[in-house]
Amino acid sequence: MDKTHGIVTILTDFGTADVYVGVMKGVMLQINPDLILVDLTHDIPPQNVAAGSFQLQNAYRHFPVGTVHLAVVDPGVGSCRRAIALETEVGFFVGPDNGLFSRILQLEGVKSAILLNQPRYWYKPIPSLTFHGRDIFAPIAAYLASGISLVELGDPIPLDSLTILPAEMYQSSPLGIRGQIQAVDRFGNLISNIPGDLVQLRDWSVAVGARHFPKRLTYAEAAWGEPLSLVGSHGWVELAIQGESAQQMLDIHIGDSIELSWATCSSDVLP
Amino acid sequence: MDKTHGIVTILTDFGTADVYVGVMKGVMLQINPDLILVDLTHDIPPQNVAAGSFQLQNAYRHFPVGTVHLAVVDPGVGSCRRAIALETEVGFFVGPDNGLFSRILQLEGVKSAILLNQPRYWYKPIPSLTFHGRDIFAPIAAYLASGISLVELGDPIPLDSLTILPAEMYQSSPLGIRGQIQAVDRFGNLISNIPGDLVQLRDWSVAVGARHFPKRLTYAEAAWGEPLSLVGSHGWVELAIQGESAQQMLDIHIGDSIELSWATCSSDVLP
Amino acid sequence: MDKTHGIVTILTDFGTADVYVGVMKGVMLQINPDLILVDLTHDIPPQNVAAGSFQLQNAYRHFPVGTVHLAVVDPGVGSCRRAIALETEVGFFVGPDNGLFSRILQLEGVKSAILLNQPRYWYKPIPSLTFHGRDIFAPIAAYLASGISLVELGDPIPLDSLTILPAEMYQSSPLGIRGQIQAVDRFGNLISNIPGDLVQLRDWSVAVGARHFPKRLTYAEAAWGEPLSLVGSHGWVELAIQGESAQQMLDIHIGDSIELSWATCSSDVLP
Repeated sequence: MDKTHGIVTILTDFGTADVYVGVMKGVMLQINPDLILVDLTHDIPPQNVAAGSFQLQNAYRHFPVGTVHLAVVDPGVGSCRRAIALETEVGFFVGPDNGLFSRILQLEGVKSAILLNQPRYWYKPIPSLTFHGRDIFAPIAAYLASGISLVELGDPIPLDSLTILPAEMYQSSPLGIRGQIQAVDRFGNLISNIPGDLVQLRDWSVAVGARHFPKRLTYAEAAWGEPLSLVGSHGWVELAIQGESAQQMLDIHIGDSIELSWATCSSDVLP
Repeated sequence: MDKTHGIVTILTDFGTADVYVGVMKGVMLQINPDLILVDLTHDIPPQNVAAGSFQLQNAYRHFPVGTVHLAVVDPGVGSCRRAIALETEVGFFVGPDNGLFSRILQLEGVKSAILLNQPRYWYKPIPSLTFHGRDIFAPIAAYLASGISLVELGDPIPLDSLTILPAEMYQSSPLGIRGQIQAVDRFGNLISNIPGDLVQLRDWSVAVGARHFPKRLTYAEAAWGEPLSLVGSHGWVELAIQGESAQQMLDIHIGDSIELSWATCSSDVLP
Repeated sequence: MDKTHGIVTILTDFGTADVYVGVMKGVMLQINPDLILVDLTHDIPPQNVAAGSFQLQNAYRHFPVGTVHLAVVDPGVGSCRRAIALETEVGFFVGPDNGLFSRILQLEGVKSAILLNQPRYWYKPIPSLTFHGRDIFAPIAAYLASGISLVELGDPIPLDSLTILPAEMYQSSPLGIRGQIQAVDRFGNLISNIPGDLVQLRDWSVAVGARHFPKRLTYAEAAWGEPLSLVGSHGWVELAIQGESAQQMLDIHIGDSIELSWATCSSDVLP
């Protein structure tokens, strides 16, 4: 990749009530006012690195090759956790080495990783000890999106030294796949950690305790108020109730186990 | 209109905690990184098409002629509801044919409408069944804002086949106008469905049950804590309490009836 | 300053559920579609001018010289409060003269101030009495960011006539500084009105009632659940609990007094 598009996406847990995100944009526009800045979300639950990793995974593939993804969910700011940047086939990633890029490291061919240790590319005059988003990560992202090469910005570090969060577990058996709820979206849909790729071409039903969620292709295939499961647009098996919030209607939470069972005939398995 | 400004506004019910909106922007920037993307709001109450239609009406007229308005409040995604684009004198509208464009159809001269049935302009490689915002509407909006003509993107459909929500009713009599509360804004102001144009030049008072809201020209004309009514900047008759949230202070809700009575003399009608 | 960068920041109390902010952007893009529009925050508590002034102070210095800062927290809209624009060494400020620019007036060399009284630069055709954000401030900001000079847009007013909110008080003594909590951020950190510049180079401890917050350089220096104080990235002395929300854990609120005491030896003063 020898050309960048000048696009920087931004994902944080800073919320939007304070000006922290605006300040990071100001710092980047000082470096290059022609950058295209795109918010992914700033409502990652405070300091929830796993949630940040999940949302980043759902977003990055939909941006142009060469995009710089700036991600800051950083409970260890000021500690010895490293500040890093990654180069992959699809783009760049800038942020703390605390597991936020776990899924990128697992899914993409990472070409190189650097430790951000070149203060001449940091925000001046006073790099703070508590806001590396503004003082280190934002300027580095702006320089990368402006065409500065990775090797200028820091020293290489071994790929196998990078932090990966413990993998969310799903277990396959001849009867189906056991997984977990890993997120809930705004509509109250329950998103599991079972990859859609594994199940797309077969029939199944999902059970959570005594509740059953027959496979559908779309929400609209189910009647109003009817439970269903489908492969969501994000690529995960998802549980929903047509026209309602499954989260509010059911007592199901992040981390709860779900059982996906293969159908034994061509029709849906019904309870 | 033979020139577009490359502006795309975006209105959804996706919220901002998930990356859905960011993903739509990524898809559009893949098509044309020079687009100007403007968020209208993503906090339409989930699947509330009427609320989306109301907010869109309040916004579109304030953008340059030729702007593309991408609106996705789409409870019927994956059902047989049609995906459409409209061309009007003021700009383009892209989204589901479920009533979201009711007020555009009633207020603007719609020049043509098309069914979005040309998959070569959709997002590749895998159009999902559940996220047409990303897979159909966002790329179509990006192509329109890049100068591709409407006829390239789909086949014409009759204007009289387009979905219009049942009109919010207001009833005029020689004594005044009976209407309803149709929205509440962040300040707790209660926005009715009575158009300001009908009442701008006369004196009136509004009653909701036993409560009276004298006409004012500005909030500041009323004393702190005093009820008032005025024609809001959005163009609707609005009920407020100076310095307070009318919604929190009063037991008035969306759908409640209001009575606007003409003044019988040049001063305000007071109870 | 004879060159603008075409950047406009926007800070309001309009929230993001309504389309008010989007509409202001539409008005600005009608004047100049090449503007770079950056949201600071729209979640200032409704009509809280002091909170708006605080957030604006934390943000403006991080943008390029020449940036136009559009700020609308305007409880007196339609009253006799003046609509103004300021030129400073660091950029321009546009909004109501109600104290929102107090800290700019105190901290920056203001070169000139004008009353916005030239309707030919306002939004047409109908300037409303209730939404000067859209009708006066947004277009003026767009013209300033497009290179129109201040003197075109209104008549000069004396700098000493501009509204300044009563200063938040902190009191120094040989033993330390007495201040107040002035804000709470998303992480529940309690931000005081004691400037970091005054304390940066010394050791101290902060007390709120019987609770003690030893000085740290970073959050990570404290153990999980331990109280600490530090100079935050915004430049104020801040109280926090490592890994937790100090606001939720403690019964401390905006306006509460805090006591910063100088250490009597080179180590932190502990209770």
